[in-house]
Amino acid sequence: MLIGVDAGGTCTRAALVDRGGRCWGFGTAGGGNPVSRGPGQAAQAIDAAVRAALDGARSDAAPEVAVLAMAGAGTAPALAVPALRAAGRVEVVHDLLATFCSGTPRQSGYVLVAGTGAAALRVEQGRIAASADGLGWLIGDAGSGFWIGHAVVRAALAAMDGFGPATAMAAMVRRELDLPEGDARTPDGQLLALRAAVDAVYQMRPVELSRYAQIAFRAAGAASATTGFPAAADPVAVDILTRARDHLVRTLGAVWRGECGGPVVLGGGIARRLPGLSGALADALGAREIILVPDGVIGAAVLALRAAGIEVDGAVFDRLTGSIAEHR
Amino acid sequence: MLIGVDAGGTCTRAALVDRGGRCWGFGTAGGGNPVSRGPGQAAQAIDAAVRAALDGARSDAAPEVAVLAMAGAGTAPALAVPALRAAGRVEVVHDLLATFCSGTPRQSGYVLVAGTGAAALRVEQGRIAASADGLGWLIGDAGSGFWIGHAVVRAALAAMDGFGPATAMAAMVRRELDLPEGDARTPDGQLLALRAAVDAVYQMRPVELSRYAQIAFRAAGAASATTGFPAAADPVAVDILTRARDHLVRTLGAVWRGECGGPVVLGGGIARRLPGLSGALADALGAREIILVPDGVIGAAVLALRAAGIEVDGAVFDRLTGSIAEHR
Repeated sequence: MLIGVDAGGTCTRAALVDRGGRCWGFGTAGGGNPVSRGPGQAAQAIDAAVRAALDGARSDAAPEVAVLAMAGAGTAPALAVPALRAAGRVEVVHDLLATFCSGTPRQSGYVLVAGTGAAALRVEQGRIAASADGLGWLIGDAGSGFWIGHAVVRAALAAMDGFGPATAMAAMVRRELDLPEGDARTPDGQLLALRAAVDAVYQMRPVELSRYAQIAFRAAGAASATTGFPAAADPVAVDILTRARDHLVRTLGAVWRGECGGPVVLGGGIARRLPGLSGALADALGAREIILVPDGVIGAAVLALRAAGIEVDGAVFDRLTGSIAEHR
Repeated sequence: MLIGVDAGGTCTRAALVDRGGRCWGFGTAGGGNPVSRGPGQAAQAIDAAVRAALDGARSDAAPEVAVLAMAGAGTAPALAVPALRAAGRVEVVHDLLATFCSGTPRQSGYVLVAGTGAAALRVEQGRIAASADGLGWLIGDAGSGFWIGHAVVRAALAAMDGFGPATAMAAMVRRELDLPEGDARTPDGQLLALRAAVDAVYQMRPVELSRYAQIAFRAAGAASATTGFPAAADPVAVDILTRARDHLVRTLGAVWRGECGGPVVLGGGIARRLPGLSGALADALGAREIILVPDGVIGAAVLALRAAGIEVDGAVFDRLTGSIAEHR
């Protein structure tokens, strides 16, 4: 038996598969990224997801190969995961490589992920050939959930304070942050609602602003990566999402070297929902085959099979995809 | 004797003046803002600046009134400043109100400050009538030194990584951050220089990015708030500074109610240097009289005189301005 684990920032998923690509057990747990959660909590989440997958298969045999997909894989510390202590071999891979392999059994192509962060890879012969962005919330991740959520909160507060254009997002942020109503001001001339916003936001970790990205999607009436914006959409929200889309096109463009025999795989909640992203990638880069995937767990299983010396052809890939879907 | 103190984020200035507006002593010290430095260090800096001013005047008499100008005055904790323990009265005022009073003896008008942060006030009859922005680096301070420096570093790294347009600022940031030359990549496909940039920047406090604002000024060949950009200027740098200028115009616009018998006072290193800011304020708002001031220490002395019941007319103001300049 082999196991593939996608250790994401908010959720960890594990799939136990046999050498033919059939899934026997599937488990989930909380965030398993050692950079954002710390190595201890990350190891616990991975352990819980792996145990749930083993329990589902009613198995207590140690897996032959385990592949862990995680952000910052290159700098990942050795993780102490009890359920994997007896595994024949544990490999840590780049989370975007697993996302790519979740979309296709081919060995070359591109992957663009925008969730809380944003980055792109070019993959050649199963290996990473180049990456772009993934520089984190403060100096990169252009077009990501953080980037959008940060822009939403800034635009909403600027509108409330009168130094930015009016937007439907102001009332939505006011509600989400539970700010006082009305336009009473402090003795220093500041709106009480803005004083409360400052007090609330600087208590958070900056990256938590990514949760407000959904406000832009609501205000812009955004449906999916393959559609556009409705006519009545809030123009400030549409502007933010359009700029995010432009950033993501440029991020994939930075690793683009034309069609290379494989698809563009899109992953992450933002890339999957951003209106018009697929069309913009086709127009700007000539991307023809675009595949949306929910996460990297199928790809982690693909990489576990390959690490065990098994060729993952279309038939094995389809069996993996179908049987993991049945176990989710 | 009266004392006015401008307790800024990077420098504290104190002026000891008599009831006629003549300066007798002037002192400086490090950052004296209790929000950014903590109350203990802020109190020490204020104490050192006040002592230097008293020493300059060879005085050991306690001042009758002390006015401390500082950001976040509304929430300032009581500061234990030994040199002011025997003062008749200590008042803490909004730093922007002191900046306004550094530029004019009139009681109404506007002040726009852009240094590390950015904010504007409307002043009526000597009091704050409204404020805009000043919401801090994460959710406000649009057009400030942080805003510009953050945009500079993002644009430079995006250019190096290929997901942003080429800019002369890339080489400048590479030097300033001491990043490795060349285009070698990590096994994860990331430029070594970008890996080093991530390691360096996330070690800093985010607000320290404001120091890179000067790179935009250099790349844009920026001269002063009253001139434009040279033809050969880097377009990415010009774009950042132009957007900063637009933000600052909107921030003053948020408190603007037409000419109100007083000037627009501009303070802070960014507002004083941003090319075309004066012209943009005149064009967008109809501002006619624009006065540039270096800091708020003259205004703190003006407010100390007023707190002692002294009317500060043009003659007193000119004496204050002239004699403080002689002591600096």
